[in-house]
Amino acid sequence: MLQWLKHYRRELLAGDISAGLVVAMMMIPQGMAYALVAGLPPVVGIYASIAPPIVYALFGSSMTQSVGPMAIISLMTAAVVGPLAPGQPGLAGVLAAQLALMSGAVLLLCGLLRMGFLANFFSRPVMSGFTVGSALVIAYGQLPILLGGPLQQWHLPSAALGLGALLLLVLARLWGAPLLRRCGLGPAASDIGAKLAPMLVVLGGIALMSHTGLGAMGIHSTGAVPAGLPHLNLASSNAHWRALLQPALLIGFIVFLMSMSGAQALALKRNEKLVSNHELIGLGAANVASALSGGFPVTGSLSRSAVNFAAGANTPLASLMTALLLAGALLAPTGWLALLPLPVLAATIVVAVLGMLEMGILRTAWQYDRSDALAWSATCLGVLALGVEAGVIVGVALSMGTLIWRASRPHIAVLGRIAGTEHFRNIERYAAETQPELLVLRVDANLFFGNVEAVSQRIECELATHQSARHLVLVMSAVSSIDTTALMALSELNQSLKARGIGLHLAEVKGPVMDRLRNSTLLQQLHGQLFLSTANACDQLQRTK
Amino acid sequence: MLQWLKHYRRELLAGDISAGLVVAMMMIPQGMAYALVAGLPPVVGIYASIAPPIVYALFGSSMTQSVGPMAIISLMTAAVVGPLAPGQPGLAGVLAAQLALMSGAVLLLCGLLRMGFLANFFSRPVMSGFTVGSALVIAYGQLPILLGGPLQQWHLPSAALGLGALLLLVLARLWGAPLLRRCGLGPAASDIGAKLAPMLVVLGGIALMSHTGLGAMGIHSTGAVPAGLPHLNLASSNAHWRALLQPALLIGFIVFLMSMSGAQALALKRNEKLVSNHELIGLGAANVASALSGGFPVTGSLSRSAVNFAAGANTPLASLMTALLLAGALLAPTGWLALLPLPVLAATIVVAVLGMLEMGILRTAWQYDRSDALAWSATCLGVLALGVEAGVIVGVALSMGTLIWRASRPHIAVLGRIAGTEHFRNIERYAAETQPELLVLRVDANLFFGNVEAVSQRIECELATHQSARHLVLVMSAVSSIDTTALMALSELNQSLKARGIGLHLAEVKGPVMDRLRNSTLLQQLHGQLFLSTANACDQLQRTK
Repeated sequence: MLQWLKHYRRELLAGDISAGLVVAMMMIPQGMAYALVAGLPPVVGIYASIAPPIVYALFGSSMTQSVGPMAIISLMTAAVVGPLAPGQPGLAGVLAAQLALMSGAVLLLCGLLRMGFLANFFSRPVMSGFTVGSALVIAYGQLPILLGGPLQQWHLPSAALGLGALLLLVLARLWGAPLLRRCGLGPAASDIGAKLAPMLVVLGGIALMSHTGLGAMGIHSTGAVPAGLPHLNLASSNAHWRALLQPALLIGFIVFLMSMSGAQALALKRNEKLVSNHELIGLGAANVASALSGGFPVTGSLSRSAVNFAAGANTPLASLMTALLLAGALLAPTGWLALLPLPVLAATIVVAVLGMLEMGILRTAWQYDRSDALAWSATCLGVLALGVEAGVIVGVALSMGTLIWRASRPHIAVLGRIAGTEHFRNIERYAAETQPELLVLRVDANLFFGNVEAVSQRIECELATHQSARHLVLVMSAVSSIDTTALMALSELNQSLKARGIGLHLAEVKGPVMDRLRNSTLLQQLHGQLFLSTANACDQLQRTK
Repeated sequence: MLQWLKHYRRELLAGDISAGLVVAMMMIPQGMAYALVAGLPPVVGIYASIAPPIVYALFGSSMTQSVGPMAIISLMTAAVVGPLAPGQPGLAGVLAAQLALMSGAVLLLCGLLRMGFLANFFSRPVMSGFTVGSALVIAYGQLPILLGGPLQQWHLPSAALGLGALLLLVLARLWGAPLLRRCGLGPAASDIGAKLAPMLVVLGGIALMSHTGLGAMGIHSTGAVPAGLPHLNLASSNAHWRALLQPALLIGFIVFLMSMSGAQALALKRNEKLVSNHELIGLGAANVASALSGGFPVTGSLSRSAVNFAAGANTPLASLMTALLLAGALLAPTGWLALLPLPVLAATIVVAVLGMLEMGILRTAWQYDRSDALAWSATCLGVLALGVEAGVIVGVALSMGTLIWRASRPHIAVLGRIAGTEHFRNIERYAAETQPELLVLRVDANLFFGNVEAVSQRIECELATHQSARHLVLVMSAVSSIDTTALMALSELNQSLKARGIGLHLAEVKGPVMDRLRNSTLLQQLHGQLFLSTANACDQLQRTK
């Protein structure tokens, strides 16, 4: 914490200030847009962009992470808050803040309990399918705002303005950077300049509304933005706290996953080490701060963090700069913001989420591992068909299902001796010698509840085909751990073999595994022996036969 | 399916008939008792004991499994149906049947999709904690029935009858079998005889109610039992179908887990092979049959199956016998059943679930692996504090959490050469030689989304301590699979190392892994080489330096 401040050097300042400025320019339209996605007044998105990055700078572990509103988290917030506060914008704001408070508390608790390993719960294909599905849901949800009404009853001036803004933003995305480069800017500056297109389009929209006749044509705008800094906005019933508990767990989880996947990509570029437990604390504190300052759930955004990094951010001072600039914007007169036309804001959202439609992972998975491609598709369809919350659950279930499914097919080899040596190899791949009274099996996996049944069944199967075997030797060279379930299964196997007059022997048990087994009764009850090497086991068992 | 009927021999008949009879005698009080646990009229428990075992005999894979009502599944049914049909016994029956139909459909679907690996989702400690927690919840729930009223306002005659029955049943459990043995019965017959105590106590209770003054003292009894066979009992609103969907998934899952854990224990004793996919089909069909015959969710019961097995059951013919006997009992006059005092039925439930309070697994886990003991306790507390449905979710989360947590700490060894040999070993355990420009790492785990971050971090960490390394050799001898997430992480590592001028080399890649990698772009882009052996890699890399 604040390590970076101790070692701060003046050379870093220019980069941090310019990045802070650029991200602030990006944050104003983005914060308002993502508040809109969450079904909240746009100013809430700016509130949520001030305190969280300041707090994250104090507690987080990433140097360039930009914490604030993020599209998918806003979508999840809307999915939770919407049904609880239909047509009650005041209550919705309170509930959104409460959700941030609870998600933040969950993240802090997980951080204190050192549960950073939770970041490993999603495979990348599942994460990607979830992101793409959510992006489509968000874009679809913005269509009525973009067009000024539902699909059948769209409002011509709104739709013209919205689609115009959309066209400009798409053009800026495609040709903005090349154009700026042709105008003489450096490649990095051009890329950053192109990212400021949403701010320019928003300013253009405001100018059109105030200086032309558009304002009188019934186009919805953000409406009065209260000047002044954010404030506490928490008070609600017990029933609400209960209703928000499960969503807060899910949102906390996704806040962490989204932030980690972005931060990891950047840490790789900077050769930085990310500490997932610090990240949990940083994000937890940021969400609590968001809640206490009238915001809603926030997380690190990959796209914004990438701009922050590209614009020269060296330390979290850049985020502090962004926060100060946004606070300044709120203290200045905010009347002009009230005129921002909603169709333009919706256009910035649609273009932003189009950037999330990344199909590369699906393509890689399709070529490399169809089950991962299937997991991608199922998660994406889950979000589209069942909603974003159910999508998370589908994603976790698929990740875990794939894991257990793979674990349930452990590799087990029957070993034989390479003639004249001490080496034992898989008899399917080598010309290795076996003996009828000895069955030597090597299990190439850690033994745990997920594969214990498959291992038992394979052993019974091999015993059935090797009827003359009097000794079963399990070669444990690839087993680094045995959990309680597997221990009990081994004990049962031992009993069952004993009843059939077959010895159970263990060879090449690793040191840590042996230490554990000494705490159990398996070794005393073993109807067989322990051997240091497989060769040793076979020599001795042959002799005693 | 029906394999056993083809090979049926006359010698098996005696055992099957006697087991069928014994289990029927056990099933009558148990069926009624577990219907009571589910909050349904007792006769529903007998309905659920007729069609399901017949259908399971046709489709299931276990020879001695006794399928029918089971305490924990009844508790889960009550937890779902109770809140949806408060004070509406008719609707409760319809919903319970519907729940069985949906759970059955889920199980059938999982069976057709060959998802038997789902049985590996729970570790045994988690399963045991879940069972103990549920047993306590069930016993506590029966107290008001046992005492004839809530704790503060118990009804003296009811409580006397209930506690008397409880005492008798506990005595029968403790000393029934030894007493019968002293009377000259064989050990197996004595054990079985003792299991019939609940039927005797129930008959005694009925006799007391009909022939003494007890009947007039306000003790609740089962009330009129409609004679005749079960019938279809399905019709309900769309909202109910939707409300039952998630519970049906959970109940289907637990039905499968409960049945598998019991069947596995018996299959081990009989050296039988259990096919989990057939088991899914058998249980699914049994639940659908239960639903269509006015029953409620059913599963294989370990305690009943064990009695079935001990009483001599050789094939599913025993279960068919049981079903026929129960159907006969329903066709005979059922007036006498109406007098069965509920406190006596509650006493049989309390004694039955006391048998589920098995602490052996907790003890083993406590000595062997504290994290498994913790998972046991958390699941048990989860059921007690949050209810049986949330308990399942807590259990799955803990099993998966433990798994990911263990996976997130893979064993990785820095290897060195044993002087003068071709062997490479962990330098922490052997006096092995290393070279400053070569870093040789062996990852002792399959690479997948759960450990990919830990592996990357460890590699960065080792590179940081081996600043002079120009080549990183990953020894893949223990890696049997690489998923898409790990493939992408390897590509990123390759890019990152390339940028730093460090070569990434792979050695001892297994055949199946190599086949997979050929479908990706990693091998083309590899900033390094593939080597068959580690010795080979080191020799060549040293020469080219």
